[in-house]
Amino acid sequence: MVPMNQPTVEQFFRTFALTNFEVSKDEKKLFFTSNMSGKMNIWAMDLPGTFPYLFSQYDESCGGIQTDPEGRHVFAQFDKDGDENYHIYTLPYEGGIPKPFITGKSEDKFFLSETSEDGNRVYYNTSEGNPSFLNTYVHDLGTGKKTLLHEGEEAATTLSTVSPEEKTFVYTSAFANTYVISFVDIDGEKVDLTPNREEVHVSGGAVYANEDHIYFITNYDSEYAYVALFDIKTRSFKPVLTFEDEGVSTIKWDKKEGLLYVVTEKGVQDYLYSFDVSTEKLEAIDTPVDVVAQIQVAASGNVYVLGMSASKPANMFKRENGAWEQLTNNRVLGVSPEEMVEPGVVTYKSFDDMEIEALLFKPHEENDNGYTVFWPHGGPQAAERKFYRSLFQCLAYEGYTVFAPNFRGSTGYGSEFVKLVEQDWGEGPRLDCMAGVDWLFDQGITSKEKLFLVGGSYGGYMALLLHGRHADSFKAVIDIFGPSDLTTFVGSVPPHWKPMMERWLGDPERDKERFIKDSPITYLDDMVKPMLVIQGAKDPRVVKEESDQIVAKLREIGREVEYIVLEDEGHGFSKKDNEIYVYTSCLEFLDQHQD
Amino acid sequence: MVPMNQPTVEQFFRTFALTNFEVSKDEKKLFFTSNMSGKMNIWAMDLPGTFPYLFSQYDESCGGIQTDPEGRHVFAQFDKDGDENYHIYTLPYEGGIPKPFITGKSEDKFFLSETSEDGNRVYYNTSEGNPSFLNTYVHDLGTGKKTLLHEGEEAATTLSTVSPEEKTFVYTSAFANTYVISFVDIDGEKVDLTPNREEVHVSGGAVYANEDHIYFITNYDSEYAYVALFDIKTRSFKPVLTFEDEGVSTIKWDKKEGLLYVVTEKGVQDYLYSFDVSTEKLEAIDTPVDVVAQIQVAASGNVYVLGMSASKPANMFKRENGAWEQLTNNRVLGVSPEEMVEPGVVTYKSFDDMEIEALLFKPHEENDNGYTVFWPHGGPQAAERKFYRSLFQCLAYEGYTVFAPNFRGSTGYGSEFVKLVEQDWGEGPRLDCMAGVDWLFDQGITSKEKLFLVGGSYGGYMALLLHGRHADSFKAVIDIFGPSDLTTFVGSVPPHWKPMMERWLGDPERDKERFIKDSPITYLDDMVKPMLVIQGAKDPRVVKEESDQIVAKLREIGREVEYIVLEDEGHGFSKKDNEIYVYTSCLEFLDQHQD
Repeated sequence: MVPMNQPTVEQFFRTFALTNFEVSKDEKKLFFTSNMSGKMNIWAMDLPGTFPYLFSQYDESCGGIQTDPEGRHVFAQFDKDGDENYHIYTLPYEGGIPKPFITGKSEDKFFLSETSEDGNRVYYNTSEGNPSFLNTYVHDLGTGKKTLLHEGEEAATTLSTVSPEEKTFVYTSAFANTYVISFVDIDGEKVDLTPNREEVHVSGGAVYANEDHIYFITNYDSEYAYVALFDIKTRSFKPVLTFEDEGVSTIKWDKKEGLLYVVTEKGVQDYLYSFDVSTEKLEAIDTPVDVVAQIQVAASGNVYVLGMSASKPANMFKRENGAWEQLTNNRVLGVSPEEMVEPGVVTYKSFDDMEIEALLFKPHEENDNGYTVFWPHGGPQAAERKFYRSLFQCLAYEGYTVFAPNFRGSTGYGSEFVKLVEQDWGEGPRLDCMAGVDWLFDQGITSKEKLFLVGGSYGGYMALLLHGRHADSFKAVIDIFGPSDLTTFVGSVPPHWKPMMERWLGDPERDKERFIKDSPITYLDDMVKPMLVIQGAKDPRVVKEESDQIVAKLREIGREVEYIVLEDEGHGFSKKDNEIYVYTSCLEFLDQHQD
Repeated sequence: MVPMNQPTVEQFFRTFALTNFEVSKDEKKLFFTSNMSGKMNIWAMDLPGTFPYLFSQYDESCGGIQTDPEGRHVFAQFDKDGDENYHIYTLPYEGGIPKPFITGKSEDKFFLSETSEDGNRVYYNTSEGNPSFLNTYVHDLGTGKKTLLHEGEEAATTLSTVSPEEKTFVYTSAFANTYVISFVDIDGEKVDLTPNREEVHVSGGAVYANEDHIYFITNYDSEYAYVALFDIKTRSFKPVLTFEDEGVSTIKWDKKEGLLYVVTEKGVQDYLYSFDVSTEKLEAIDTPVDVVAQIQVAASGNVYVLGMSASKPANMFKRENGAWEQLTNNRVLGVSPEEMVEPGVVTYKSFDDMEIEALLFKPHEENDNGYTVFWPHGGPQAAERKFYRSLFQCLAYEGYTVFAPNFRGSTGYGSEFVKLVEQDWGEGPRLDCMAGVDWLFDQGITSKEKLFLVGGSYGGYMALLLHGRHADSFKAVIDIFGPSDLTTFVGSVPPHWKPMMERWLGDPERDKERFIKDSPITYLDDMVKPMLVIQGAKDPRVVKEESDQIVAKLREIGREVEYIVLEDEGHGFSKKDNEIYVYTSCLEFLDQHQD
């Protein structure tokens, strides 16, 4: 008999991040961002070969890659230690060390938008000179001249896409996650893509089929987002493709075939379709993934998808002549797919009879330790979906059941549902969570002696709030960079978020009472369970003070609080060693607080 | 115009190590050791797919991998921070964290030898209990019982191979690099494979064609190593394949075809042949590499090669039906093959008219900075060959000419030539180097004002000695873990080297005078040029004291010496960050000492 180690917590995190891929125009190079080397860098493959090589060494998070169609250079945007202040860099087409190109003060942001079809002009959005509403520029690579195209007003406004001949430009203005207007700039005249901008709705994701026809995504006058067409000549708006119970999340234009590739989301899962705009033939396309993170349609009509499922980490796939080929082999170190857990999708009724969907990860029977982890997701206008989470899989492997409800405010359940968290962060969603807790108890899945509470970002806020108001239901609590005081939080978000905060969260003056009622810090005295708090020092979304203050106050009144601060991280863990350290600490914390 | 960074020194080292591959019996998995993730770990590919995934996380150098033919587990040997004290670990076949299996005191060594065809017994050599001469054991995986098979005597003796039915065993005893005896153990009787063990020669690399026929490599009675056959039944020795001016370095048995795959070395390059033992048909096989680092022949007859060339880093290739497929894409970050330099092969006459071959790397004209780096290789019984050296390529890119002579004692030029360094480390080889320096001057390639001296290990020793005795010819000197005093050096090598030291270097008592004459430390006063010394604190071959003492003494007499010690490295740089730091420091040192 040969003795061997069983999979450790670490192993579930020994997979790598895979984001922001870009296929070159000739489909000979595939670029992607990954932390294969331990830190985030750009890697590449020389297709059809799939052995990856280091393309760029910089050890920072890359927010986007754009390649010159002529193969002269590559643009990439990087931030610093996760501060999300992206600047634009150039790289030789053969790879190398990034050189700052479109850049400014460290606190300013520069976002790549588009490169012209001839590669000679690059469009970008920046906070420089307009931190709340943003400006859009075009940089002429020949002359080096940069031209201001648009100044954002009243809402953070970014260039969405440019017409093939670069004559008209589609912009989006985000008043809130649920209130995003798109308009097209025609010779300086700004024309909304939807009939009435006063109606609260979302429109975006625009693509030009040609100089006159703009396909885009909107939920104007509808519960679920659909595909609409705007005709520049007639200035007319027309819905062209709607789904029942599915919201369109992404569209891509296949110039060769005259097709739209359409990604829809339905609760915890995504679906892919092709839609022939002339024949209106809609075809469902099977995909090897449950969640589509990114999709690109090459000039050849080949489709490239980055996606994952609950038990499979992010991988890239290529679809050619209807057949999928897996390009990458991102897997969990030494854990076979059979050892992973596929979640069940369950529903339960909340306090007001509203139906809530949740993911339920049951450990394999032989591993079951009888404990359950309750996970309120972040966002809040996001959802817990079937993407690979190392934490969930290693919790399940260690024997924990994991329960992750999509409380009101979650995306994927229609436009009304997602709005229900707006100006109500702490009441409805909290009661949905507690209804989920009760459901777990009723089902006999767990009991208050066996229930842990873990969440990050908004989920960290919810974990703190649930701890403060329902401590009796939980055994111990982990808060990962969650806001602890809505009043200080609303004052500390990035400037370009501020215009959205009113609708999203509310006004600290007008809603003073509610802010206090819904702030975890209000319920300090009732936070009697052991707690672990984790925070990135450079976090620009939920600043370190949010964690500092609640940890300090809890310790003042003698409560048991562990506090981990990561000096070189932001709102998330970009460095593999940090990630492993954090989640190993979480597992140890939970193990310590079992009976 | 888009500004871009030019390749930096760092980029030439942003390639990765690729060693110790092993293809599983079914050819569905390819394992290899690499520092792709920044530190050495085992990676794998699921063939025919070539996207690699992390197979084992341990962050230590792996000295060998063996897979169970039944796919139950994997064995690997790891050392600690490069101390070369390898211990044997087990891993699940799906990968994971290594578990110590055949292990002992940290100073003991355990070397994997072979696994039985059914995978139920693993053979290994160890210094445990016999540090100078080593013992051989077989470990029965079923019973867990380990059996002592052989106790080494008079020379470091290791199991070379086992007969298919595990009835007879071939061992090699190394008295020196140039004096290695192989014998077969037949029911306890030890029979030499060559006619006369008293004659100084090398025999090794044995493979069993069947239970009775052992093919092996020897230079018995010959200048160049050839393939011989030993017949166990008749106990007869017979040369079967000889080459002119080429020495056989590796043979592999293709059971399916009844072929021997034969790798030969000729000076700076390797060649591959297949040899049909029944028809004696010899076929030369083109390879995509100039140097073969490792070769494996699968049961299917497919050939797997790990190799490199001077301008291409190590990569793996598969040969199926006569065609090569490149499996990996190990390349230099952002440097195209055209920007690399292919060395010329030059020869010159030494002081005694002996012909010396050397590699000459000329920078591309537009980069030429007029300076030359003289590189005496390590070993000394090794050679500078056409393998990829980041240092040479980045020196050439920075404009340096690099000259690397294969002075007497180098391998690849016949068995007499390689012996010429034995008991003469400091005279003949040194004069060969100086003849090379003169040749460079005569050719007008460089002058004493433009010549730098850089070497590692024996090359570091030679750099020190040349500095001490010919300082006038050089501008500045870099010594990378080179012995500075032969008397202390001979006393500090690993125990299992000791038996070889007498022939290799000599006896510190008997050869006292020569040891003093040939020790760099004897010439301290004449070391007047700026010097950089680099040493790994854990180096087991050239211990840190060798560098400490010369640096201390030189500083005592007020000489300019930079000293870099790497705490977590041995005789080489296993960690990418260390490697980049060391060689960036070397380049800076050279740049500083240009006029």
